[in-house]
Amino acid sequence: MRIGIVTSGLGIARQCLRKNTSVYRTCRRQVTGSGSPLDLNVDSKTGIAVLSMNKPPVNSLNLEFLTELNIALEKVENDKQCKGLIITSSIPKIFSAGLDITEMYQPDIDRLEEFWRTLQDMWIKLYGMNCVTIAAINGHSPAGGCLMSMSCDYRIMAPNYTIGLNETQLGIVAPFWFADVMLNTVGFRQTEMALQLGTLFKTEEALNIGLIDKVVPQEEVLSAAQQEMQRWFKIPGFARQLSKTELRRPTIEKLLKKKEEDIGYFRDYITKDAIQKSLGMYLESLKNRRK
Amino acid sequence: MRIGIVTSGLGIARQCLRKNTSVYRTCRRQVTGSGSPLDLNVDSKTGIAVLSMNKPPVNSLNLEFLTELNIALEKVENDKQCKGLIITSSIPKIFSAGLDITEMYQPDIDRLEEFWRTLQDMWIKLYGMNCVTIAAINGHSPAGGCLMSMSCDYRIMAPNYTIGLNETQLGIVAPFWFADVMLNTVGFRQTEMALQLGTLFKTEEALNIGLIDKVVPQEEVLSAAQQEMQRWFKIPGFARQLSKTELRRPTIEKLLKKKEEDIGYFRDYITKDAIQKSLGMYLESLKNRRK
Amino acid sequence: MRIGIVTSGLGIARQCLRKNTSVYRTCRRQVTGSGSPLDLNVDSKTGIAVLSMNKPPVNSLNLEFLTELNIALEKVENDKQCKGLIITSSIPKIFSAGLDITEMYQPDIDRLEEFWRTLQDMWIKLYGMNCVTIAAINGHSPAGGCLMSMSCDYRIMAPNYTIGLNETQLGIVAPFWFADVMLNTVGFRQTEMALQLGTLFKTEEALNIGLIDKVVPQEEVLSAAQQEMQRWFKIPGFARQLSKTELRRPTIEKLLKKKEEDIGYFRDYITKDAIQKSLGMYLESLKNRRK
Repeated sequence: MRIGIVTSGLGIARQCLRKNTSVYRTCRRQVTGSGSPLDLNVDSKTGIAVLSMNKPPVNSLNLEFLTELNIALEKVENDKQCKGLIITSSIPKIFSAGLDITEMYQPDIDRLEEFWRTLQDMWIKLYGMNCVTIAAINGHSPAGGCLMSMSCDYRIMAPNYTIGLNETQLGIVAPFWFADVMLNTVGFRQTEMALQLGTLFKTEEALNIGLIDKVVPQEEVLSAAQQEMQRWFKIPGFARQLSKTELRRPTIEKLLKKKEEDIGYFRDYITKDAIQKSLGMYLESLKNRRK
Repeated sequence: MRIGIVTSGLGIARQCLRKNTSVYRTCRRQVTGSGSPLDLNVDSKTGIAVLSMNKPPVNSLNLEFLTELNIALEKVENDKQCKGLIITSSIPKIFSAGLDITEMYQPDIDRLEEFWRTLQDMWIKLYGMNCVTIAAINGHSPAGGCLMSMSCDYRIMAPNYTIGLNETQLGIVAPFWFADVMLNTVGFRQTEMALQLGTLFKTEEALNIGLIDKVVPQEEVLSAAQQEMQRWFKIPGFARQLSKTELRRPTIEKLLKKKEEDIGYFRDYITKDAIQKSLGMYLESLKNRRK
Repeated sequence: MRIGIVTSGLGIARQCLRKNTSVYRTCRRQVTGSGSPLDLNVDSKTGIAVLSMNKPPVNSLNLEFLTELNIALEKVENDKQCKGLIITSSIPKIFSAGLDITEMYQPDIDRLEEFWRTLQDMWIKLYGMNCVTIAAINGHSPAGGCLMSMSCDYRIMAPNYTIGLNETQLGIVAPFWFADVMLNTVGFRQTEMALQLGTLFKTEEALNIGLIDKVVPQEEVLSAAQQEMQRWFKIPGFARQLSKTELRRPTIEKLLKKKEEDIGYFRDYITKDAIQKSLGMYLESLKNRRK
């Protein structure tokens, strides 16, 4: 499995983050000055890392945030004390709103491609993590938020939120590897219907079709994740990881083989006039909603 | 996707239908003189086409009827006003009894091959339709009737009927692409068992395993389909179609690559002495049942 | 389908069983002197063969027992009177405990490879059986016992037992074809979770996820299997077999293509120091449990 090599694509973005070089100036956004939008806490006693997304207003995934996520995931994977990772949100009522639409609207092409590559890398890393991964879904989790949740080993969600790949509702299409992860989670029929309709499932519906695994009250999501982790820690880690890799590898390898093709497809689709117009109208409606 | 080219196989059959030429005389059956066995009504206000099968006694699929179905499906797909298609039956208590067994018994080989090719084309077209397709299953739906239903985007069925791929009960075998559509609808385990046993599921059983999506009283099947259509029309059509194509394409391409092989396999299997004898006995039993 | 050729691998083991040659002496275990560990009864009236495993204490699958199983399966498949096979256990409370761990601990490499090849052959044969196969699971059925059960066409189980691929709990990994059969039985999500956690499902849980098909009281398991068989016998055998083959062939062919690779992988994994140490500790714990 060539997962090791996929981080190379992060090069430019990392330089953006770390150095104030000419490369940096091609980036339009900077990570929040006063501290990271990600809180990563590793409890060396329990071996559990908690990664909490804290990027107001809605934990939307832009290039810089995805880059931070990648760095954090790599940190966890390389930390031999970490046996498990819980992903959650520090923003009330939102797990993650998914991809940042402003990355796609009137984009700089180089950055657009880098954005997509960094998203691919994040998913490849997360879906293939050796340690146990649990999504503690304490808020709405549409689109990219749903992708992140589905890529974990287990999903615990609070009531009265929604989760799903709702891309079609915005006139865009979830890439094949979003669809593949959903196929692996809820099967063909549910995926086909959910992707066409862009369904956002309420917590209970998500449980019924197997999109999530457990529902607990909002205030217990994190502790339930901690507790669930113990069940996974009882299994010899090496054997558990191999079992996971064996099953998830074909899905990951499919994207590894088509990374550049997928970037080109995304770039060409998103820069179509009709799609740009549609995204523009959507962004306008968001602005008006806030007023 | 090479769906566009698959209609070429319809050539001969269409000539049969349209011209009284020498080619025509090689066909043994003619479409009912007094009007078509298919009613196609397009409501330009709602954008919904209703295709109602009206070929007594049981909407069985012979070469001419399949050809008519193909022409109708193409008409709908090319009509820019059509955003959705509802397939239903005008025959009481029968959606479609499936393939016409008389096509397979003591067949003319050229016609037999043309029959199978036209069935392939019908499925490729229906499973890949860009517009939203809903099966309004207002009667029994065995074998080919089940295939047609499963190939739609959504299935609404009246109570007290049956649906399933029951081919083995007649001593024949559903081709691999019938099986593939069932795999996509209800998963491997249910498909494996249903295909081996030739199970005809009662309406409620079909709902339980996900073979259909909704049950409504007989008199409400069509209006429920009209209403369901509205849910699908809310989604931007272009994105919805791409999502559908992305998921269904591999299944369609599998047949496209093996069309001729599949025709040859069907021809060789169905013309075996043992199968012919078994079909003869079955047809005899049908005759006696009618007496 | 090249199933015919896969029996060649049994050569050496059969010589072990049949002749007291030099080859024999390389085998460390002998089949129980006083009669076979397998009871095979064919009822020529009903066409049903009952294969009952009777190898105390727990029907564990070692080289000799697997060889006997292969011979029995071949006998049934070649017996034209046999239309169905029921696999069950004569040992109270145990269907089969799965692979004999002593085959894997401090192994003779030749025998280890032969052991694995014979297991592969057993599965290829059982999963591809032309006749109807029903598992009458009248006791616990972990690991290899679960594989045998899943490879049948139908599973009837008594209450208060457990079934599952629990390999990871022992620090070993179910091979890809164990996983493939589970994927075909309960789908990706359940398989992924069950394999990572090494879940042993209680009878009712197994029914809920579709790992088994029916639950009946302990004393009715065998008669329920006999009765269920009648439902399958009603279907023309030739068509039923073809339907089964068409669906299961890709899974079988995947292993056929990778048999030697899979043997090498197993050999290299199991002979690792860490795995040997872990198996040693497990065997020690079993000994202590018996005291």
